[in-house]
Amino acid sequence: MSSTNSIIKLGLPKGSLEKPTLSLFERSGWKIHQHHRNYFPEINDPEITARLCRVQEIPKYIEDGILDVGLTGKDWLLETGADVKVVSDLIYSKVSNRPARWVLAVAGDSPYKRPEDLAGKRIATELLGVTKKYFEDAGIDVDVQYSWGATEAKVVEGLADAIVEVTETGTTIRAHGLRIIAEVLVTNTQLVTSEAAWADPEKRRKIEQIDLLLQGALRAESLVGLKMNVPSDKLPEILNEIPSLNSPTIAELTDTAWHSVEIVVDQSIVRDLIPRLKAEGAEGIIEYALNKVI
Amino acid sequence: MSSTNSIIKLGLPKGSLEKPTLSLFERSGWKIHQHHRNYFPEINDPEITARLCRVQEIPKYIEDGILDVGLTGKDWLLETGADVKVVSDLIYSKVSNRPARWVLAVAGDSPYKRPEDLAGKRIATELLGVTKKYFEDAGIDVDVQYSWGATEAKVVEGLADAIVEVTETGTTIRAHGLRIIAEVLVTNTQLVTSEAAWADPEKRRKIEQIDLLLQGALRAESLVGLKMNVPSDKLPEILNEIPSLNSPTIAELTDTAWHSVEIVVDQSIVRDLIPRLKAEGAEGIIEYALNKVI
Amino acid sequence: MSSTNSIIKLGLPKGSLEKPTLSLFERSGWKIHQHHRNYFPEINDPEITARLCRVQEIPKYIEDGILDVGLTGKDWLLETGADVKVVSDLIYSKVSNRPARWVLAVAGDSPYKRPEDLAGKRIATELLGVTKKYFEDAGIDVDVQYSWGATEAKVVEGLADAIVEVTETGTTIRAHGLRIIAEVLVTNTQLVTSEAAWADPEKRRKIEQIDLLLQGALRAESLVGLKMNVPSDKLPEILNEIPSLNSPTIAELTDTAWHSVEIVVDQSIVRDLIPRLKAEGAEGIIEYALNKVI
Amino acid sequence: MSSTNSIIKLGLPKGSLEKPTLSLFERSGWKIHQHHRNYFPEINDPEITARLCRVQEIPKYIEDGILDVGLTGKDWLLETGADVKVVSDLIYSKVSNRPARWVLAVAGDSPYKRPEDLAGKRIATELLGVTKKYFEDAGIDVDVQYSWGATEAKVVEGLADAIVEVTETGTTIRAHGLRIIAEVLVTNTQLVTSEAAWADPEKRRKIEQIDLLLQGALRAESLVGLKMNVPSDKLPEILNEIPSLNSPTIAELTDTAWHSVEIVVDQSIVRDLIPRLKAEGAEGIIEYALNKVI
Amino acid sequence: MSSTNSIIKLGLPKGSLEKPTLSLFERSGWKIHQHHRNYFPEINDPEITARLCRVQEIPKYIEDGILDVGLTGKDWLLETGADVKVVSDLIYSKVSNRPARWVLAVAGDSPYKRPEDLAGKRIATELLGVTKKYFEDAGIDVDVQYSWGATEAKVVEGLADAIVEVTETGTTIRAHGLRIIAEVLVTNTQLVTSEAAWADPEKRRKIEQIDLLLQGALRAESLVGLKMNVPSDKLPEILNEIPSLNSPTIAELTDTAWHSVEIVVDQSIVRDLIPRLKAEGAEGIIEYALNKVI
Amino acid sequence: MSSTNSIIKLGLPKGSLEKPTLSLFERSGWKIHQHHRNYFPEINDPEITARLCRVQEIPKYIEDGILDVGLTGKDWLLETGADVKVVSDLIYSKVSNRPARWVLAVAGDSPYKRPEDLAGKRIATELLGVTKKYFEDAGIDVDVQYSWGATEAKVVEGLADAIVEVTETGTTIRAHGLRIIAEVLVTNTQLVTSEAAWADPEKRRKIEQIDLLLQGALRAESLVGLKMNVPSDKLPEILNEIPSLNSPTIAELTDTAWHSVEIVVDQSIVRDLIPRLKAEGAEGIIEYALNKVI
Repeated sequence: MSSTNSIIKLGLPKGSLEKPTLSLFERSGWKIHQHHRNYFPEINDPEITARLCRVQEIPKYIEDGILDVGLTGKDWLLETGADVKVVSDLIYSKVSNRPARWVLAVAGDSPYKRPEDLAGKRIATELLGVTKKYFEDAGIDVDVQYSWGATEAKVVEGLADAIVEVTETGTTIRAHGLRIIAEVLVTNTQLVTSEAAWADPEKRRKIEQIDLLLQGALRAESLVGLKMNVPSDKLPEILNEIPSLNSPTIAELTDTAWHSVEIVVDQSIVRDLIPRLKAEGAEGIIEYALNKVI
Repeated sequence: MSSTNSIIKLGLPKGSLEKPTLSLFERSGWKIHQHHRNYFPEINDPEITARLCRVQEIPKYIEDGILDVGLTGKDWLLETGADVKVVSDLIYSKVSNRPARWVLAVAGDSPYKRPEDLAGKRIATELLGVTKKYFEDAGIDVDVQYSWGATEAKVVEGLADAIVEVTETGTTIRAHGLRIIAEVLVTNTQLVTSEAAWADPEKRRKIEQIDLLLQGALRAESLVGLKMNVPSDKLPEILNEIPSLNSPTIAELTDTAWHSVEIVVDQSIVRDLIPRLKAEGAEGIIEYALNKVI
Repeated sequence: MSSTNSIIKLGLPKGSLEKPTLSLFERSGWKIHQHHRNYFPEINDPEITARLCRVQEIPKYIEDGILDVGLTGKDWLLETGADVKVVSDLIYSKVSNRPARWVLAVAGDSPYKRPEDLAGKRIATELLGVTKKYFEDAGIDVDVQYSWGATEAKVVEGLADAIVEVTETGTTIRAHGLRIIAEVLVTNTQLVTSEAAWADPEKRRKIEQIDLLLQGALRAESLVGLKMNVPSDKLPEILNEIPSLNSPTIAELTDTAWHSVEIVVDQSIVRDLIPRLKAEGAEGIIEYALNKVI
Repeated sequence: MSSTNSIIKLGLPKGSLEKPTLSLFERSGWKIHQHHRNYFPEINDPEITARLCRVQEIPKYIEDGILDVGLTGKDWLLETGADVKVVSDLIYSKVSNRPARWVLAVAGDSPYKRPEDLAGKRIATELLGVTKKYFEDAGIDVDVQYSWGATEAKVVEGLADAIVEVTETGTTIRAHGLRIIAEVLVTNTQLVTSEAAWADPEKRRKIEQIDLLLQGALRAESLVGLKMNVPSDKLPEILNEIPSLNSPTIAELTDTAWHSVEIVVDQSIVRDLIPRLKAEGAEGIIEYALNKVI
Repeated sequence: MSSTNSIIKLGLPKGSLEKPTLSLFERSGWKIHQHHRNYFPEINDPEITARLCRVQEIPKYIEDGILDVGLTGKDWLLETGADVKVVSDLIYSKVSNRPARWVLAVAGDSPYKRPEDLAGKRIATELLGVTKKYFEDAGIDVDVQYSWGATEAKVVEGLADAIVEVTETGTTIRAHGLRIIAEVLVTNTQLVTSEAAWADPEKRRKIEQIDLLLQGALRAESLVGLKMNVPSDKLPEILNEIPSLNSPTIAELTDTAWHSVEIVVDQSIVRDLIPRLKAEGAEGIIEYALNKVI
Repeated sequence: MSSTNSIIKLGLPKGSLEKPTLSLFERSGWKIHQHHRNYFPEINDPEITARLCRVQEIPKYIEDGILDVGLTGKDWLLETGADVKVVSDLIYSKVSNRPARWVLAVAGDSPYKRPEDLAGKRIATELLGVTKKYFEDAGIDVDVQYSWGATEAKVVEGLADAIVEVTETGTTIRAHGLRIIAEVLVTNTQLVTSEAAWADPEKRRKIEQIDLLLQGALRAESLVGLKMNVPSDKLPEILNEIPSLNSPTIAELTDTAWHSVEIVVDQSIVRDLIPRLKAEGAEGIIEYALNKVI
């Protein structure tokens, strides 16, 4: 079905994103199984070989052609400066499905209010290059030091005056008694490829397939299907209740006094929509889950 | 969207009912997240503030106006004698989705057969007031003592002559070698509010919304959707097989020799219904899960 | 509803197949609950009593009439030589839903290439009879020894020259540095009954019901439902994309420019099918999960 | 060895004190094994039958003669008002081996500074009687409510204005943002008996044996043995370094230029004592652990 | 230090005895570390190579010279009929440090009272040979069947009329509602070697060393050291209290009014001995743990 | 007792060495408790404040005066080039209490035999600087790349040609199919201070106390106490068996036919020493554990 040349080399993030990523691929149609002590995870698609890498390392591997396509973060693309092509944004995570931010944070009880107050001070971060550039661009002279982790604790322990650290909700930052004084970078997961892979029609087709299905599965997470029977004479009022962006599927039933109406809606509005539909005369309303919405 | 006044204060049960309750609310449309070390769980609805309390304490807090609405048990309503309004019954639990019973139990090999045989004896229970009243109403003089837990063991250990304890299936009672001689109270979870909250139209609307969606999600747990194609000339026979209380959704297909039939049925009857539908000529029968049935 | 005589005695496999089997029965419509310290699991069907047994032992129990019907493996049917009737194959497992193989394996760095190279050598296995017969039929004289488990390790430890062991993917075999040189037996789970039970019309009806529902639930595992709206003039092209074995459900919508199309397809083809359907003009494509497909 | 009459009935605390109590008895010479599903724990002494009870319930059971002797807290002796005899204090716990305190605590940012500031307010506590009496004695009118647990959270959640709760280190109180404004009661575990058991010479002898060994094992926890060889002419200086309350064991060695000195000291002083002993000429200093010190 | 020929091959039991055995060897002076995925555990003695085997398999490996010495059970020696030499008994286990028994058990409510009542019946056991011989010797004709485990359940499930199963305390037997009607075999762990190894002086010396140290560590488990100061004039009375089998170490102290007395006693008598020693005038009594007693 | 100036700032290693380090300090006389969510661990000595840091970071913190003293590795001293004073070696770890080695490893089936075969190749390591210097000193031109962990896997995955990684036993290296071709650095934990702290007499006294007790506790880990009674006429022969570096404590007993002999010996020789002592006539040999040996 596919020559060896056109087998696409896919890089998946190891670590905290690993489990949600494998789950997203499974919902998209690819089962990936990571055997204990095996280096190459199994994937049920002969056109793909997958491997798990640190997100920090994926951009460089794509640039070097070791991988054709991968999932990494906007932050590490910038940090590594790798020359790659971004295919799309994939906003998901273990916690909040929101983009994450690298922020500049100081001790809650320190006098620092703005980045310029940190001139001459020590900044700890894992995102060394981006942070240095941030301060250089701002013309502030600081001592940026690489941190091997547990960065939030460094300010509290007196080991740094400020940190640049990633956060989704700010919870961990605040739990350490820190105060955010600036946002350095907004980041999220991205599907990334090399110019070479993108220029190869066979590989590009595969990358676009992966992108289409991942987006479809991500979209389905927040949507549900609703199905109901509607008195034919109440159809206009009921369609009026349904958010305009949805194009409902309407069919006449054998009993012509009723129509069947099916819609796909954001699950966050269901608890308000159902009472209104019921009030307008809809009956037999059922809600069901969706795997994919394209 | 909502003034501070109309934000409803919702009390959720802490402890053994906590996990099934949060799961039920999630299926109903409200995500509640209990942060470690936070007192107020987060809920994704600006019209509600939630807090977790012991079921024993919720009735009093509603009576005092500290909460507007909450989930508690019929048993603790009686025990506390709190002056509150019951909105509806919500029959679910961690174990059996059946109502629970407070029963009077004695050692399996004891001579006691009826409550009156316990005159002058010692009864241990966590439901002190209800138990005392039960024996007073029956004109039986007993020594009712408050039990701090592990009540079933007290009879076996010789620390009490009988107990009054709650049970769903009787399994724990029997596992301790006890014998039930009377039923003191049947109880289940209830949605409860104060007269004041119920009289406020804005709050009442919100309470009714919560009730409608909780009921819809609970109902969906035991139901499934069935969809099948039916030869048009077999439609009457097949509709005849379907339990009369269900109103099926029937539509003619483009191929007019066939109709599509959709029904919602109790999943406990599916294993008997499917063979009969198949025998009558239904084809392409599929079963799928439901999130809510209103 | 059923006389004691017609209650069917069902044997379920204990051990590694236990959890997936109980899950399969639950999806098929039977809830089986194994109480701690109880011998007979509870099943919510008065026409069945269930018990958990080792797969090795089930064939003999059925032959002896201790059980009427049960799930076991083709391998242990052969090993025990029990005289039973196979109703159907049920291909599922904890790992791969593929048939498993009993293979002959030797140390990766040993000189053995074919079974005949093992003449005069020591073979360890849990499948003693089948293995002996395999070598006898081949006219090779070997010393087959029963192994109490951890069979793979025996070659490495110098305790055996070769092993005959079961494997689905070969992973464990290779992880021990072993090399497979022959396949002794392909096996999978089977629904098995006795001639006596099969000859009893009441029991046979029950066995056929169990078989129908188990097959329906197993089939649903690999299938999903797809629903889409199709421009009426593109209907032929789109139907052309759909695998011919599926008979789609097609209905005209109230807006006659569109038809609704519903299909049930293998989820392994969805990732290729959806892009093609979209390219042909299908809109509002949704995928949803199925419990059963009959 | 013992008639049934003289078998002593011992009550041990169930719950958070259970594990450290069973461990203390084991170090004292009694192995107690709590079988799953058994009511009476096994104890390897025919003169004792043990049972596990809630600390709150032990005082009443001793007063009623259901138990002869037990471990409970000074707090629950007061709360229950049971008429019992205290044999000795046993200061140990899961956390700190310090006495615990029931304290009156308010929100850290509340205006309350002294108990009298709480007049007319709501106080939540598990120690209902003692707390009511504390405020009555002080002539302060408050509304004391029974709390079913998680008491610290109630102030933060606005369900109470103050709490009376037990604490060893104050950590949990402070972690909830509360401020202690008064101490209501200092408490610790006590060995308690009834006047009747104490008056029975056989039982009293057994109770005194239990007390002697428990005290010996508790004492050994904080002590270690030190042994060293000392130049005979440095003996006075070295003995001078040793805390005066210890009576060292001194023996002349075969090589009369040296004496052997053995002492038992608090392990908290060892890190300062050893450098001084070494400086004075002691050699071959070894430290070893102790099981019991009587 | 040792030629390859004289390296002794030691077999250690895998499974339930594995952890207590490795712990016993560690207390005896040999650290054995089982690396994940390694076949040969590391042992810190160049004169020994160790391997972990099933107890059932060790006798045969010793007979065949694959192992020189090993720990196995008297039961499996008999069952396998292996021709080996027993060096000594080592009575320890995970549970009770008591010998275990293979017993014949029947359903508690069955009519069987003696082995002969089982004539013509079905017996399930893992100890096939011994059980067959037991009944043959008794002239009772039964059908003994090999059981792959969970043997106790077989009687309850109606799969066997009786079982022969191993038990230390009888707890599991009784928990299954079974009744013991005969004892088939008393067994315990044994140190076993081959005649060949025993005849090799170098290997025999090593085996005797292992035996001496294992016995010394086992003995120390139940013993403790007691040390006290005794008034010189009370020495006879105090020595009189000490169990006669112990030979105490007595030395005069520098302060000649006192003697030091050291004894090693069974820890089960300490709780009675200490009060008597104290009553006779002993002071500064300390108890300490022992690693080995030779 | 101590002015703020003289409080010593102690850095303890976070991560894999954390647990064994806290345990070592506890055995040395300092209880350190790391509260969840607290930055500074509690230590029961008012003269010390402790903090947990990455071993990589401790050298720099000491050089900068942020810490006075700390535990780190020889490897990270070299890598960081920090200007600090080494007080002593502390050889312990979670695994083997042996020094660890940074080794150069390649794929087992690769052609590389010596470092020079790697000219022009890619080397992954966490010890960037030391590795670069190693190859520069050898005049070999390689591309050394920083690795964020899982370094061993990189060779197997084709992401690097060789790695430089730390290992104690080589197990993990071999488990990845790698082959060691050179040793880059031998390392172990060291107690390290700054010249400034060492020059302050008060701080130096404290550092020497810490060093004395840590060494005493580490030494005790491998030693045990032996005590025995020896026939007075066999004393010379028995003393002859005892390793000459030990100075035994010998005392005449009241029964002058016997002497008591106490020694402290390495536990690794006990299994050989005891049989010899016994053969020479020693009796009542007991072995006991030691907390500290100074």
